[in-house]
Amino acid sequence: MNRIGKKLGVQTFALASPPVIIATGTVVGPFEGKNAYHDDYDMIAPDLSLGQSSFELAEKEMMTNACQKAMQKAKRSEKDIDLFIAGDLLNQLITSGYSASYIGLPFFGVYGACSTSMASLGLASLLIDGGFIGTALTATSSHNATAERQYRYPTEYGNQKRPYAQWTVTGAGAALITTEGKGPRVTHVTVGKVTDLGTADPLNLGAAMAPAAVASILQHFADTKRTPEDYDLIVTGDLGNFGAALFQRWLKETGGIDLGARYFDCGAEIYDRKKFPKVQSGGSGCGCSAVVVFGHLFKEMIHGRYRRILVAATGALHSPTSVLQKQTIPCIAHAIAFEFP
Amino acid sequence: MNRIGKKLGVQTFALASPPVIIATGTVVGPFEGKNAYHDDYDMIAPDLSLGQSSFELAEKEMMTNACQKAMQKAKRSEKDIDLFIAGDLLNQLITSGYSASYIGLPFFGVYGACSTSMASLGLASLLIDGGFIGTALTATSSHNATAERQYRYPTEYGNQKRPYAQWTVTGAGAALITTEGKGPRVTHVTVGKVTDLGTADPLNLGAAMAPAAVASILQHFADTKRTPEDYDLIVTGDLGNFGAALFQRWLKETGGIDLGARYFDCGAEIYDRKKFPKVQSGGSGCGCSAVVVFGHLFKEMIHGRYRRILVAATGALHSPTSVLQKQTIPCIAHAIAFEFP
Repeated sequence: MNRIGKKLGVQTFALASPPVIIATGTVVGPFEGKNAYHDDYDMIAPDLSLGQSSFELAEKEMMTNACQKAMQKAKRSEKDIDLFIAGDLLNQLITSGYSASYIGLPFFGVYGACSTSMASLGLASLLIDGGFIGTALTATSSHNATAERQYRYPTEYGNQKRPYAQWTVTGAGAALITTEGKGPRVTHVTVGKVTDLGTADPLNLGAAMAPAAVASILQHFADTKRTPEDYDLIVTGDLGNFGAALFQRWLKETGGIDLGARYFDCGAEIYDRKKFPKVQSGGSGCGCSAVVVFGHLFKEMIHGRYRRILVAATGALHSPTSVLQKQTIPCIAHAIAFEFP
Repeated sequence: MNRIGKKLGVQTFALASPPVIIATGTVVGPFEGKNAYHDDYDMIAPDLSLGQSSFELAEKEMMTNACQKAMQKAKRSEKDIDLFIAGDLLNQLITSGYSASYIGLPFFGVYGACSTSMASLGLASLLIDGGFIGTALTATSSHNATAERQYRYPTEYGNQKRPYAQWTVTGAGAALITTEGKGPRVTHVTVGKVTDLGTADPLNLGAAMAPAAVASILQHFADTKRTPEDYDLIVTGDLGNFGAALFQRWLKETGGIDLGARYFDCGAEIYDRKKFPKVQSGGSGCGCSAVVVFGHLFKEMIHGRYRRILVAATGALHSPTSVLQKQTIPCIAHAIAFEFP
């Protein structure tokens, strides 16, 4: 093996021997199970507690279940895997820490808020292509009840939300990535820079994150000398309906690019917003892009609908403390190009 | 260049062309400036606020100052650096997120609590040796006032602490790591597994973390077929006086190894515990191992006192929520072998 990766342009890494995602595992909550792509998920939890005594433990249960599903589908066990890379929204990445304890693999915790699905997969891809590891397991999750009480208000208050607010997805996604096999391959990883245009409203995260998605996608095209036409689908993580509209407008204004029917936002698509108006602008949370990309879009690739997709998962890196201190919201987007076959 | 890293044994990565830390930057608070190694730090802040309106912004100021010091000392600017990898103790890694926004480099956030100094440096080393990047900047920080109010009680309460409690270090450390130059080289990275022996007292973190340090150090020896005699110093991050004693006892009981005078714990050594009994068992926090290793120990290596050291930075991955929910404390230790010249 003589695999030497390389950096293209400013922020993109091109993989010499693109690693392959041989299996994914996705677990969602009961509400997500009543919405789009419900046939594409591996497990739909009957309730938000998953038999646990707290929502936090339920989220850990979802993440470990997603990991086990991915391993089962690929007929691999922990002993076949070199490294676990995971992250989530909860303070001190508690879901990932407890999951890593349960799974028992060497572990790196990563935090990129809702960009974690692509941050963890990107890092795993680079470590595999660098020759250090053969197989990695990556995972991320979010849970509506744990996120609401950490970031916003006790759900018992019944706070009303504005139309641009988003609904945190209850879901976990895991990916098993290795050197050889059948599945979508990671060909390029564009690592995001933090973008902060001064937005400070934590209930309007789509608007905060959209500029980060624009920046990373334009940089991906500049670094790789590719154009939107090189992709069958260009995906953002969880901008939601409002954020996705802003994203498209800014991409046109700053980059002169109209993605048209090639564009897809996981947050805008995961829920049936007409049937369930409580989701307002759509889905958000680390689990959003994880379950839609790993559950739905990879299936579409394997079934031949898309050959090449670019996924820019966006994250808002604020904390409840930074919001109380009236700081702006730093955002990031990590983009990965996937190819199948 | 034909650099192919490889995995040794179960958890250790051996670097084919060991990357070199060409400069570090360390910033500490006024109290740390009155203790051991005060001559080794690049900057001692005159007060805990660093001219900022909140302690959280002060912590960000420390981290960005540490990064700038490292860049100045190496005569490098942001344009010479490919990637910024950072993490801290605050919820959602807010210090690192704002620092990444200020520094403007492609960014991965990592969380390993007080193991973050070695987690970030380990990941950077692997990405450099894999050929993807030429130069990375890594950073971590902790601040006594931000950590106390997030993890424990408002400092105004004046809570008393037990003898095994530790004092969160106000400090930030940054390292600039690249392919060529003068400085300590990273030869091996042992990625930790989560170890949880059931400890649940968040004021006795030394006891919680000691087993993780034992596990990673024994695994490092097993993977590399090295012995303690191969190192001039074997360092743990922030076990404190009590934790370091437990660590030595467990290492002897489970591994039959007595480190003797070769052993050094940053938490036990950073403060003059006799002069300042308020620190109880010693220092802790992400900044502890960062400023002692980057500030003091690397200087000792460059001055010829140590040729080869092994640093196992330990982290307790609990959150205030997990403590309230009476969960145990999952811990981890990432170990790096450094060599100079």
